Amino acid sequence: MVNNNRSTYAARPMDTLKNSLEKNVMIDVRGSRSYSGILQGYDVYMNLVLKNVSETINGENRGVFEKMLLRGDNIIFLSPSGGD
Amino acid sequence: MVNNNRSTYAARPMDTLKNSLEKNVMIDVRGSRSYSGILQGYDVYMNLVLKNVSETINGENRGVFEKMLLRGDNIIFLSPSGGD
Amino acid sequence: MVNNNRSTYAARPMDTLKNSLEKNVMIDVRGSRSYSGILQGYDVYMNLVLKNVSETINGENRGVFEKMLLRGDNIIFLSPSGGD
Amino acid sequence: MVNNNRSTYAARPMDTLKNSLEKNVMIDVRGSRSYSGILQGYDVYMNLVLKNVSETINGENRGVFEKMLLRGDNIIFLSPSGGD
Amino acid sequence: MVNNNRSTYAARPMDTLKNSLEKNVMIDVRGSRSYSGILQGYDVYMNLVLKNVSETINGENRGVFEKMLLRGDNIIFLSPSGGD
Amino acid sequence: MVNNNRSTYAARPMDTLKNSLEKNVMIDVRGSRSYSGILQGYDVYMNLVLKNVSETINGENRGVFEKMLLRGDNIIFLSPSGGD
Amino acid sequence: MVNNNRSTYAARPMDTLKNSLEKNVMIDVRGSRSYSGILQGYDVYMNLVLKNVSETINGENRGVFEKMLLRGDNIIFLSPSGGD
Repeated sequence: MVNNNRSTYAARPMDTLKNSLEKNVMIDVRGSRSYSGILQGYDVYMNLVLKNVSETINGENRGVFEKMLLRGDNIIFLSPSGGD
Repeated sequence: MVNNNRSTYAARPMDTLKNSLEKNVMIDVRGSRSYSGILQGYDVYMNLVLKNVSETINGENRGVFEKMLLRGDNIIFLSPSGGD
Repeated sequence: MVNNNRSTYAARPMDTLKNSLEKNVMIDVRGSRSYSGILQGYDVYMNLVLKNVSETINGENRGVFEKMLLRGDNIIFLSPSGGD
Repeated sequence: MVNNNRSTYAARPMDTLKNSLEKNVMIDVRGSRSYSGILQGYDVYMNLVLKNVSETINGENRGVFEKMLLRGDNIIFLSPSGGD
Repeated sequence: MVNNNRSTYAARPMDTLKNSLEKNVMIDVRGSRSYSGILQGYDVYMNLVLKNVSETINGENRGVFEKMLLRGDNIIFLSPSGGD
Repeated sequence: MVNNNRSTYAARPMDTLKNSLEKNVMIDVRGSRSYSGILQGYDVYMNLVLKNVSETINGENRGVFEKMLLRGDNIIFLSPSGGD
Repeated sequence: MVNNNRSTYAARPMDTLKNSLEKNVMIDVRGSRSYSGILQGYDVYMNLVLKNVSETINGENRGVFEKMLLRGDNIIFLSPSGGD
């Protein structure tokens, strides 16, 4: 079921970011933080530019931010809301 | 809805900093710290120069600083106050 | 039982990822988090692309995610579900 | 209000250090530590040489040091006492 | 008792891994985790490929894994079971 | 009070180490540890060689060590006992 | 008391390791761990190969290991038992 040159076709992590541009994403961050918003940009360090962001800390809604630069360092995972 | 060369037009994280120069920004930092002030400069490590800074630790106002050099290492996110 | 050029035949960590493509994997992450899903891609930093992901935090089921980009930084181990 | 070549004029973080030489600075460090003294030197890692330093840990005065080499790693922010 | 060119004959850390291939090893990992299994491979980051792995967390047996890719980042030490 | 080429004359952090050779130094280390001894050597990572070292953990005297190699990683600050 | 070319004669941290080969050393590690054994090898990352190792965690004897590869990352200090 895995052919030898399969890795050539494997989904690249950075492509997940590219394919999520202008879409809603959910991001879990160290320290029990979670952010949900529209991905507007990124760089190779996974620093993200987000729009219309809702922040959750320890399960509680905290803030809403029109725009946000989120550092990649602290990210645990990013999930696109509507598939890829 | 996403064309293949979309990434060319994606917002770059460093541009968020550039576009926030001389504007008010809010920065969340590890250790339940938050800083609000006017962004005067930055470098590629996200070290920031801020002016007229208010500090909040664990939700309490702490200090006011005329000028501050904030290390990029500890930053969780930066949000421009009035959009971009 | 170990011949001198055995290391030539040793399993390479990155091959474990390659051989797990399109298979179910279980990943333990710092902060008492665990993720189970189908591996779709990876890069040299062990950033992973996963599909149909179940999340467990402190032993409790939390979320289900159609797609996820999981940062390699926080990974403790990855185990393929059905051998290699 | 922001012209396109503004970043050329932006304050550089390292200049904040240069402009603080021989002046009093206040430095917050991870672990609820704070140091106040005269900045005598620095390097690109933000390692600092300080003179006449007062140390505060968890809000309590601890020590006074004639001279100190403070590692940049642990610094959260540095603030010059009398502007820039 | 130490001659000057002794370092030439010193055991190299990576050789401990090489000499442990196909042998049972015990690995202590940050977060009170311990893994015991047969070493099948490694890379320069000390990422390990293990077979027939028993996991202990806080002194309790947790899981058994047929195969595991353990990240080198979190390792405290590795000990070969039967010498070298 | 600060002339423009002052930075040329600024004290360099590594010079503080050089000037402390064969002198008594006090070193604060993460984890509420403190070491006091005679500095015998160092490298660019701030790894230190110390002689006649007293160790304090959480304010309690612990050990005395004839010789010690202290890793730079964990150092918060170093202070020479008798100025520079 | 310090002549200008003294640094040339300063003890180099790596030499402390070289001079400790085949001798007993004591190593303190983050997480209240301590290891005592005979140093058999090391590399530039301070990864160590140890023989006849006693482990202490939180002041309690835990294990004895015939051989151990200890990662340099977590080391706080190493002290040779019988001087240098």
